[in-house]
Amino acid sequence: MKTNITQTRLGILGGGQLGRMLIQEAINFNLSVSILDPDTDAPCKKICDYFEVGALSDYETVYNFGKKVDLLTIEIEKVNVDALEALEKEGVIVYPQSRIIRLIQDKGLQKHFFKENDIPTADFQLIADKDQLKNEKIAMPFIQKLRRDGYDGKGVVKISSEEDYEKAFDEPSIVEKLVDFEKEISVIVARNEKGQIKTFPMVEMDFNPEANLVEYLISPSTYPFEIQQQAEEIAKNVAVNLNIVGLLAVEMFLTTDGKILVNEVAPRPHNSGHQTIEGNMTSQFMQHIRAILNLPLGNTDAVSNAIMINLLGEKDYDGPALYKGLKEVLKKEGVYIHLYGKKFTKPFRKMGHVTIIDNDRDKAIEKAKFVKETLKVIA
Amino acid sequence: MKTNITQTRLGILGGGQLGRMLIQEAINFNLSVSILDPDTDAPCKKICDYFEVGALSDYETVYNFGKKVDLLTIEIEKVNVDALEALEKEGVIVYPQSRIIRLIQDKGLQKHFFKENDIPTADFQLIADKDQLKNEKIAMPFIQKLRRDGYDGKGVVKISSEEDYEKAFDEPSIVEKLVDFEKEISVIVARNEKGQIKTFPMVEMDFNPEANLVEYLISPSTYPFEIQQQAEEIAKNVAVNLNIVGLLAVEMFLTTDGKILVNEVAPRPHNSGHQTIEGNMTSQFMQHIRAILNLPLGNTDAVSNAIMINLLGEKDYDGPALYKGLKEVLKKEGVYIHLYGKKFTKPFRKMGHVTIIDNDRDKAIEKAKFVKETLKVIA
Repeated sequence: MKTNITQTRLGILGGGQLGRMLIQEAINFNLSVSILDPDTDAPCKKICDYFEVGALSDYETVYNFGKKVDLLTIEIEKVNVDALEALEKEGVIVYPQSRIIRLIQDKGLQKHFFKENDIPTADFQLIADKDQLKNEKIAMPFIQKLRRDGYDGKGVVKISSEEDYEKAFDEPSIVEKLVDFEKEISVIVARNEKGQIKTFPMVEMDFNPEANLVEYLISPSTYPFEIQQQAEEIAKNVAVNLNIVGLLAVEMFLTTDGKILVNEVAPRPHNSGHQTIEGNMTSQFMQHIRAILNLPLGNTDAVSNAIMINLLGEKDYDGPALYKGLKEVLKKEGVYIHLYGKKFTKPFRKMGHVTIIDNDRDKAIEKAKFVKETLKVIA
Repeated sequence: MKTNITQTRLGILGGGQLGRMLIQEAINFNLSVSILDPDTDAPCKKICDYFEVGALSDYETVYNFGKKVDLLTIEIEKVNVDALEALEKEGVIVYPQSRIIRLIQDKGLQKHFFKENDIPTADFQLIADKDQLKNEKIAMPFIQKLRRDGYDGKGVVKISSEEDYEKAFDEPSIVEKLVDFEKEISVIVARNEKGQIKTFPMVEMDFNPEANLVEYLISPSTYPFEIQQQAEEIAKNVAVNLNIVGLLAVEMFLTTDGKILVNEVAPRPHNSGHQTIEGNMTSQFMQHIRAILNLPLGNTDAVSNAIMINLLGEKDYDGPALYKGLKEVLKKEGVYIHLYGKKFTKPFRKMGHVTIIDNDRDKAIEKAKFVKETLKVIA
């Protein structure tokens, strides 16, 4: 890589909201950012140096795009890894490394990796198709997850009875015992080339059951120090065992009997880290940039209580997006709105997020509920 | 203006670092930003929706640019005001208002305005040319300032003896008694269309005498509450008397005999507010956007001690910019680097700024000195 980091040509595979927030930080380092995305109207389009429309799954497209940059990163895992491997061989720096993206793309390999490295995770079984699923007589209820291409709550189904077989997937998948958890938690960890490693404080997530997307994220967690420390140690362990360079989001279950189990990991900025923009000394986006440029990692301390809400498209609206209630929520202090520049809304589409900062945790929660009720994306 | 603020087409006259930092915030509201700047490589070029190369002083250029947007603002005062007046008459919203830009463009009118509105300021006299300056036998030492087009320390000269007449300006200017001050201070105030008004906490500035640019900015000030309150009241008074919509930076002298005198004002984001990005609940850039969109103003509280350093081109370098010491300074916690995307450096050119955040004020100052010694812009 250029020793003069500000002359680095950075490429990002994917031009969605994660890329957009990466660019907002990359501007501070004068990085020239190129984006590859299939959508001609991707959120990054207007704010990057170079925008290319193309399929992230296509070998030639990814390879040719990668040849134009010094450093290539991702904001989505579903990319052509063979192209990344070829680029690495030819001297393009790819962070996270292609072998990590390959591993994480396949939830089966991911689970194997956890098992092999003594990372606590729910027991699982690989399944080839629906027939095998039925024949194995797995104890219900259980969760079936597609091995590939699950995203934002898609590709996951709960099987509680034989009637549910109908909605079961017929593709290669993993089957997990239903984990009895009291909370979903997440720790984002960063590691640079030198091996410096830092975790963000553990956060708690409440999911919207209908959309299977994070509804409220609370940072930092108020669970006892020991639990937080344990979660952060597990996250570090995954990062160290992967030898990753970049950011790794580690989503975990805190079970009702007090265990922590890793659910899944993502090698990139993550929805469970959006509150770091205002809530922590360093944002996850700047931390990812620091990590992949092999710069010293930033201080991850929380500066205040932060609640993050995903701003999802309202259920019954499909069309050019309108934002209702912006003025009302901005009347409250400590409300930070991030819209993703998507022209069209559809039910449950992630259109933006809002972070609420307040030194008083109860007030922060109260404001978050107000924002949730008041700010709506319609068409 | 469109009731749906996220569909507002925002135009900015000037595409330098202030525009760049405005865009970084405007992204969060999905605003479509158009930029007019004479420099084909202006800092905003790559990150705005629409970039036009053109002279800010040219009537037709500004008028035609303004016709393409709903809301027009500035990041530099030196623009064609006649064009702005015409645009206002035709329904384009111009904030700050054209009459305010016209007033502030002329330091003579500015000083008259202060006097008429009982805003404390140093005594002054208008001067037409060098001959008048000599003939008036003004008591030395005094300061001569060009009425127009002074910028970043340019257009100001100190006359201490008859020999100094040589460097005196021959253009219309103001002459001020030299103020015996112990500190230069600044308060940034914002006002929206509804008349809601908010000040940022008062900051202290130390100037580099050679470049006449801010060397260290310290926020918040540690002067007694009464002084801070007085400075904030003065800043509010200026904003209210101007009836401004948008941001107004009010630079003041704190004199050795304890008075506060307004030096000059700028109707836009200002160098003395860069530390608000990390150091305050709302940044000056977001506050300007909120003000001109007639949104509720954000909380301006300081969240920590912040020291801001301008990153100026080193004295003996002229050419493509290189940044020396980036890694070293990023090793310290709470160091935030903002580079302005300027390809070429020259002596004292503003190439970026660095903000240092630390709850311990002395540590913040120590780190700021380290950054100042370590981070250099060379070629």
